[in-house]
Amino acid sequence: MSTSTIVHIAGIPFGGEDFTTIAGPCAVESYEMALATALAVQAAGARVLRAGAFKPRTSPHSFQGLGFDGVEILREVKTATGMPVVTELTDVRHLDDLLDIADAVQVGARNMQNYALLTELGRIDAPVVLKRGLAATVDELLLAAEYILCGGNQKVILCERGIRTYETAYRFTLDLAAVAVLRERTHLPVIVDPSHAAGRRELVLPLSLAAVAAGADGLIVEVHPAPSAARCDGEQALETREFEGYLRQVRSVARVVGRRAPDPVRLLPALEEAA
Amino acid sequence: MSTSTIVHIAGIPFGGEDFTTIAGPCAVESYEMALATALAVQAAGARVLRAGAFKPRTSPHSFQGLGFDGVEILREVKTATGMPVVTELTDVRHLDDLLDIADAVQVGARNMQNYALLTELGRIDAPVVLKRGLAATVDELLLAAEYILCGGNQKVILCERGIRTYETAYRFTLDLAAVAVLRERTHLPVIVDPSHAAGRRELVLPLSLAAVAAGADGLIVEVHPAPSAARCDGEQALETREFEGYLRQVRSVARVVGRRAPDPVRLLPALEEAA
Amino acid sequence: MSTSTIVHIAGIPFGGEDFTTIAGPCAVESYEMALATALAVQAAGARVLRAGAFKPRTSPHSFQGLGFDGVEILREVKTATGMPVVTELTDVRHLDDLLDIADAVQVGARNMQNYALLTELGRIDAPVVLKRGLAATVDELLLAAEYILCGGNQKVILCERGIRTYETAYRFTLDLAAVAVLRERTHLPVIVDPSHAAGRRELVLPLSLAAVAAGADGLIVEVHPAPSAARCDGEQALETREFEGYLRQVRSVARVVGRRAPDPVRLLPALEEAA
Amino acid sequence: MSTSTIVHIAGIPFGGEDFTTIAGPCAVESYEMALATALAVQAAGARVLRAGAFKPRTSPHSFQGLGFDGVEILREVKTATGMPVVTELTDVRHLDDLLDIADAVQVGARNMQNYALLTELGRIDAPVVLKRGLAATVDELLLAAEYILCGGNQKVILCERGIRTYETAYRFTLDLAAVAVLRERTHLPVIVDPSHAAGRRELVLPLSLAAVAAGADGLIVEVHPAPSAARCDGEQALETREFEGYLRQVRSVARVVGRRAPDPVRLLPALEEAA
Repeated sequence: MSTSTIVHIAGIPFGGEDFTTIAGPCAVESYEMALATALAVQAAGARVLRAGAFKPRTSPHSFQGLGFDGVEILREVKTATGMPVVTELTDVRHLDDLLDIADAVQVGARNMQNYALLTELGRIDAPVVLKRGLAATVDELLLAAEYILCGGNQKVILCERGIRTYETAYRFTLDLAAVAVLRERTHLPVIVDPSHAAGRRELVLPLSLAAVAAGADGLIVEVHPAPSAARCDGEQALETREFEGYLRQVRSVARVVGRRAPDPVRLLPALEEAA
Repeated sequence: MSTSTIVHIAGIPFGGEDFTTIAGPCAVESYEMALATALAVQAAGARVLRAGAFKPRTSPHSFQGLGFDGVEILREVKTATGMPVVTELTDVRHLDDLLDIADAVQVGARNMQNYALLTELGRIDAPVVLKRGLAATVDELLLAAEYILCGGNQKVILCERGIRTYETAYRFTLDLAAVAVLRERTHLPVIVDPSHAAGRRELVLPLSLAAVAAGADGLIVEVHPAPSAARCDGEQALETREFEGYLRQVRSVARVVGRRAPDPVRLLPALEEAA
Repeated sequence: MSTSTIVHIAGIPFGGEDFTTIAGPCAVESYEMALATALAVQAAGARVLRAGAFKPRTSPHSFQGLGFDGVEILREVKTATGMPVVTELTDVRHLDDLLDIADAVQVGARNMQNYALLTELGRIDAPVVLKRGLAATVDELLLAAEYILCGGNQKVILCERGIRTYETAYRFTLDLAAVAVLRERTHLPVIVDPSHAAGRRELVLPLSLAAVAAGADGLIVEVHPAPSAARCDGEQALETREFEGYLRQVRSVARVVGRRAPDPVRLLPALEEAA
Repeated sequence: MSTSTIVHIAGIPFGGEDFTTIAGPCAVESYEMALATALAVQAAGARVLRAGAFKPRTSPHSFQGLGFDGVEILREVKTATGMPVVTELTDVRHLDDLLDIADAVQVGARNMQNYALLTELGRIDAPVVLKRGLAATVDELLLAAEYILCGGNQKVILCERGIRTYETAYRFTLDLAAVAVLRERTHLPVIVDPSHAAGRRELVLPLSLAAVAAGADGLIVEVHPAPSAARCDGEQALETREFEGYLRQVRSVARVVGRRAPDPVRLLPALEEAA
């Protein structure tokens, strides 16, 4: 295995011995739900908040996210919780505005080969979470990362999120061999998104445990206070109330494969009530 | 089959009874090669010129196209030949400049779900050639088109260019059933790119004839004066000197399946020599 | 292109300049339907009858074919029409009994790598129609054929029938590039099964024409007198009454790509009525 | 999750709380190597021996196994070690002879839809390890199992072994979501073959740990005393000397996800020397 580079998102490490979890809702829907989710995942042990303001959707008639209103909500949630925020960039023209609040920028699977976007991300100083395209090879993912790296930005976190196959029993086929291969071929940290692969919450736990055991440096997982009311991808979101138990199991597997995954610091009672 | 909508690129029809061919080099490399290619494909019967100025490449270390210098060359070739030009848009910020010379804008497979780009293309008046993503379903292609259509631009030409499968005997698996299905599900014209599917020129003719027989409204095919010296995708480019024979065979199949595919008007001797 | 070997099924040529069609029902359901189908496809110009007595079905609860009763019906239909018969071998222990009536033995996609079966087929003198497995590469198909060839039986006809991909708009993705590649890599004749690829009859004609144009040496197509009442795969069967028009179009494309595909000899009125 | 059925191979449980490992060489090559492998995997904690006498190979020119000579070697190794043996059935005509020594019969991926074989296996009393076809859906695997179950044999162990995708960085894409889905849809035990999925030994450990974490009931893994000299699939075989460390890590993950995976009983010194 290559010596791993550690990439920090606002001081939170990805790679090396640490196992780190990013969690949050698919999309920001309101301040209240974003805050409730953030507090819950923070209490459970997630150290970075994920949440989309701009959502790339297959159909133009689906909910496209709150846009810059969503960005403003993220700013407030970040202030309220102190959690670093990662959010998806879908339009190269939004980059500066997103960087005003985001601690890391996510490139979604559909934009993995949006080279205009990657090239701009090579010029910034913030970490980038680069998701594997849904039919990208491991080498293509590495070459997409190379667009960012050779622009001068070394802070790239790779993310396996399932590939498209003929199987219809779930949404995408999570490719954990890719995680093992990436650990051979690159020094960059590799995290896994079990939510988009699964497509439904029942599969998120087993896939998460498998990802940890396969050697992933972290997870990025969707959580929602009321998944059945979610405006996007509700079927695959874990409920906030089950997230603590979920993350406890994740940490126990992480430790047995030699990762540092400490239990979350006990919250003050006041914050616990809010969560 | 739905009644077909006819989309015109600078007066050249796609759809309906017509069978129309777009041809040209993968990338503009110089004025001389672009002009030579344009004259040759025009003489052989291609009615629209394709050529990339901005090339989306898997590796950042590959030739990325001449950029706006390439655009200027295309402007001169267009003036010299009178051929309409279709060229690929890879960065939403280039749109206005490209439209200054392009008669149609191509969206490549890697950008089929670049929704920022699609949304902007919904606001323009020029035709869009929208390529199917390399792991996109037929329905996802139609939904990507819907981003353009619901923005107000009805001039969309769909393009099948091969999908990614496990087979390694060629580059992508050309999916001609998709052409037949598209003809059921949409009124939009459907063309086929045999070059990117094939990945090598020996397969371009049989795939082209098959595409015509399957009901495609046209082809978009790569041609180069000296493929072995091409700066990108040379293995899949037809040579200019074999293109006339190629297109004659394409037309003969087109006619037998009921399409209008007239032989090219005889060129003046002067132009022939130039070609 | 390699010089093509011509394989004969009871004197009917596959390969070389000829374009030859095999047609018939998915399964023998009764003497009456098998005879009616045979007469209809024969009148339309098909020269070999296909029909299954043993059907390999995904579910054990689906109709499995009439078995040896079906074989006896095929014997009678063969006598009545004079058509050579190709039928599928699903159990190596049935080989001798099938050879008692079959002019050629079909190996289905699911048995392409049933090496016990292939090895036995290497020892017989009858032609074998070897279908590509639904996730087999072109090279794996050729190696499966090699099991038969190196046993001493040179009479192998390869058959492309669609591969499994992520697309759900049809049953399998017909891979016509494989036909072109096979024509480079082997001297064996290559036919195409558009019915199993399509999965529904609307797609059978465009896929058939495409297969012919891509260079296939023949087709094997499912036809039924009353598809809606068929006991298996009715959705993909052409109706007997539309088959003549279908085959006329197939022949017109075959001729334009240089194949010998003569119109069927005019039947005697008595036979026409029976058909 | 359904209540799990426990299937025993010669008294060794698969399913329920137990986590059980099958290990051994791809093929029996000689008595000495088979015995050495068996003793080593037994000492490390594997409870069932796997080894092929009949090998289904893509090319007829590859090593096809020792056949019945290999079966006789397995008989002797079984006597010498007391380990139950699972071996692959590739020809329905071999069934009785294999059952004379095999404690369980394996159906390989290429034969998952060899219905003649499955039907015969429905009539026997021995357990069957049924591998998923390399392009089979979860539902097709369950329907293949149904051929055995509805014949009266309830002793079926399902095995995920990787599916074919476009990725070339390893041999097959191990599909651990399928394990999770199978645990929802069936009461049958599910094991995983990491060796064939990986295609090279470096990936076997991370994939094995991932499989355990995803909920598999066991593993079937290839081990060889000298992989570089193996007559088949040597690149993917673990070495006997690294197997103990491998299995220790597997068990530690198994326990943390709640499985019973006891350390192996300490061997007598005499046996240890032999191993």
